[in-house]
Amino acid sequence: MGESLTQTKQRTTDRQRPTRTADGPRPLGTQEDDGGPVPPDPHEATSLLERARAVVDPELRAAIGSLPGPLRRVALYHFGWQHADGTPAAGNAGKAIRPALVLAAASALGGPEERAAAGRAAAAVELVHNFTLLHDDVMDRDTTRRHRPTAWSVFGEPDAILTGDALQALALRLLAEDPHPASTAATVRLTDCVIELCAGQQADTAMERRDAGEVTLDEVLVMAEAKTGALLGCACALGALYAGSPEEDVEALDAFGREAGLAFQLIDDVIGIWGDPRRTGKPAGADLAARKKSLPVVAALASGTPAAVELAELYASPYDKEDLERTALAVEQAGGRDWAQAQAADRMARAIHELARAVPRPEAAGGLLALAEFVTRRSN
Amino acid sequence: MGESLTQTKQRTTDRQRPTRTADGPRPLGTQEDDGGPVPPDPHEATSLLERARAVVDPELRAAIGSLPGPLRRVALYHFGWQHADGTPAAGNAGKAIRPALVLAAASALGGPEERAAAGRAAAAVELVHNFTLLHDDVMDRDTTRRHRPTAWSVFGEPDAILTGDALQALALRLLAEDPHPASTAATVRLTDCVIELCAGQQADTAMERRDAGEVTLDEVLVMAEAKTGALLGCACALGALYAGSPEEDVEALDAFGREAGLAFQLIDDVIGIWGDPRRTGKPAGADLAARKKSLPVVAALASGTPAAVELAELYASPYDKEDLERTALAVEQAGGRDWAQAQAADRMARAIHELARAVPRPEAAGGLLALAEFVTRRSN
Repeated sequence: MGESLTQTKQRTTDRQRPTRTADGPRPLGTQEDDGGPVPPDPHEATSLLERARAVVDPELRAAIGSLPGPLRRVALYHFGWQHADGTPAAGNAGKAIRPALVLAAASALGGPEERAAAGRAAAAVELVHNFTLLHDDVMDRDTTRRHRPTAWSVFGEPDAILTGDALQALALRLLAEDPHPASTAATVRLTDCVIELCAGQQADTAMERRDAGEVTLDEVLVMAEAKTGALLGCACALGALYAGSPEEDVEALDAFGREAGLAFQLIDDVIGIWGDPRRTGKPAGADLAARKKSLPVVAALASGTPAAVELAELYASPYDKEDLERTALAVEQAGGRDWAQAQAADRMARAIHELARAVPRPEAAGGLLALAEFVTRRSN
Repeated sequence: MGESLTQTKQRTTDRQRPTRTADGPRPLGTQEDDGGPVPPDPHEATSLLERARAVVDPELRAAIGSLPGPLRRVALYHFGWQHADGTPAAGNAGKAIRPALVLAAASALGGPEERAAAGRAAAAVELVHNFTLLHDDVMDRDTTRRHRPTAWSVFGEPDAILTGDALQALALRLLAEDPHPASTAATVRLTDCVIELCAGQQADTAMERRDAGEVTLDEVLVMAEAKTGALLGCACALGALYAGSPEEDVEALDAFGREAGLAFQLIDDVIGIWGDPRRTGKPAGADLAARKKSLPVVAALASGTPAAVELAELYASPYDKEDLERTALAVEQAGGRDWAQAQAADRMARAIHELARAVPRPEAAGGLLALAEFVTRRSN
C-alpha cells in the first residue's frame, strides 16, 4: 500500500514527460514515440462526437420514451431534453464521449459495418453513465450538473434514485434485446463495470469521511480508476466485442480506455485547483475549498516535503478564502502539480501502447486516439 | 378514473366470496370451482420454500461473494448472513417466495429437469427483490427490516444505494451468463419488471405527499400491482420461459403471479389494520397511525358512506392514540374491510383461472397453487 510520490515519480522518469507551455501541458496524444501513431486531427474528435450523438440520440430517446410517465419526465430533464415543467429544452445531454469510444473501437477493430452494428451498445453505455450520475448526485448532495439544478434537487431524492435504477435496467435491456452475437458478452462486461463503478463511488464517499492524511495515493488511484477509468475502458471493450475481436484485443482496448480515463482524471484534478472557471464551470480552487482529496493533493501530502506539512495543516483547518492561494501554492511546492501532469503523460503513454497492440495500423487507431486526446486536453 | 367501491363490489358479486371464519377469510386456494384444482397440502408450500432456499442460497452466496469488499459487507448484512461487524449470522434472508415461484412454474410447465435449469433465474429474481428493498428502505426512511436495523441505517445511505445498484447488476449478470436458451427473453422480462417496480415505488412515494381524499382506488390498485404483483408475475413468467412454454402460457403465468400478488397485498393491508402484532411484527393499527393510504382505507374513503366522512376527518387530523379504534371502526363501517377481503378472493379466483389455462392438470399446478395460497394466508 501507500505508493509514495517519489516512487511513482521514479517510475515515470524513463518515459517522455510533456513539455509545459503557457496554456498547460502539451497535448498528450501528439507525443511522437518510435513507430507511434500520427498526430490526430484536432477536428476529428469533434466530428466523432457529433456522429456518435447522431447515432445514440434516437436510441436513447426511444428507450427513455418507453419509461412510465414520472420516470420518463425525470430522465428527459436529466438528459437536458425537457425543462423541469416538461416543456422541450434545447438539450445538453453531455459530450457523448463514451458512446463515441464504443463506435470508434468497433470501427478501429472492425470497420463501418461493425460501427453501424454497435449503436445499441453505445446507447447502453451512455444510459449506464447517466444512471450513475443521477445516483452520485444524490449521494454527494451535488446541486448542479451540466449548468442546471440536479434531478434530485428538482424532483426529490426518491424520483432521482428510481430513475437511475430504471436507466440501469433500460441499458441492460437494450443489450439483451440486441440480436448481435456479442451482446451477451457485452452484458457481462457492462454489469461487471457497473459493480466497479459502484465500488469506486463507495470508496470516494468513504474517503470523504476520513482525514486527508490517512488516505494513500494507491487508494485514490484505485478509486479514480474504478470511478472514471472503468466505464471508458468498458466502452472501448464493448466496441471491440462488437467488432468480433479476440479476447486479448478486447482486454487491450479496455486497458486503453482505463489509462486514458486516469489521464483525464489527473488533468481534471489539476484543473480543479488551477483551472479557468470560465472553461470548467466551477470556481478556481473549488476542490481545495471543498477539501477534496484529489490526486494532486494526496500526492502532495505524501511527498514528505515541508510544503506537505503546511498543506496538511491547511486541510485540517476549516476553509478560509484568504488561504486559498496559499493552499494551491503548497500543493504545487510539494510537487503535486508536476506529479499529476507526469502521471497523466505516463498513463497516456500506456494507453497508446495498449492501443498499438490491438490496432497496429495508425490510420485505424486515429479515431480512438483523437478521442483520448480530446478527453485529456479539453480540460486544459 | 376513481373506480368507486360500489362498482368494484358489483364486479365481484358474481364470483364466489370467501366465507369468513373466526380466524379470518377461508383459505382462498381451497375454493372448489368446477374442474378446479385440488386443495393444496398445507405442508407443500413450506417444503417448496425450503427446497428453493437450498437451490438459490449457493447461487446468491457465490454472486454476493464476487462483490468488492465494502458492497459485499452490506449485502451479507442485508441478507442476514452477517452481523453489522462482519461476524457470521444465523441468516434470515426472507422466505424465498419469489425463487420458489420461479422453480414451481418451471416444474409445473416443464418438469424436474426444467426446474433444475432455472436455479440462476430464481436467484436473479431474488437479487432484484433485495435490490428494491435496499432502495425502498432508503426512500421510505424505514429503520427496520426482517426484525433488524435496515442497511442504510447501519452503513449510511450511499452504501445502501450502491449495494442496491450492484445487486441489480449482479441479477442481470447471472441471467446473461446463463447458457439456457431462455436467458435472453428472461433478461428482457426482468428489466421490464424492474422498471415497473420503480414506477410502483414512485407512485407510492408520490401518494404519500397527497391528501388521502385525493387518491383514487384505481391509482392504489395500479400502484399495488406494480409494487407487489409485477415481481411475483415475473417470477412465474421466468419459470415458464425456462420450461420452454409458448408466449401465451408465459403471459398466463405472469397474470397468475400478478393476481396472487394483489390478493396478498389486499390481505396484508387488512392485517396492517386489524392484524395480530405477534404475527405481523408491527403493532396493530400501525398503518392507520402512519396515515397510510392502504387499499381498505382508500376503498372506505371512496364509499360515499357517513363512516367515510368520519374517516376522512380522522385522517386529516394528526395521529392520536385515543382515535385508533375509532379509525379502524370507520374503515370497517365504510366497507373497507369487506371490500378488501372480497377483492382478495376475486383476485385469487382470477389467479386460479389463469393458472388453469396454462396448467390444466391439477397435479402439475399444485405447487404454484400452494405457494399462492401460502402468500395470501400467511398474513391472516
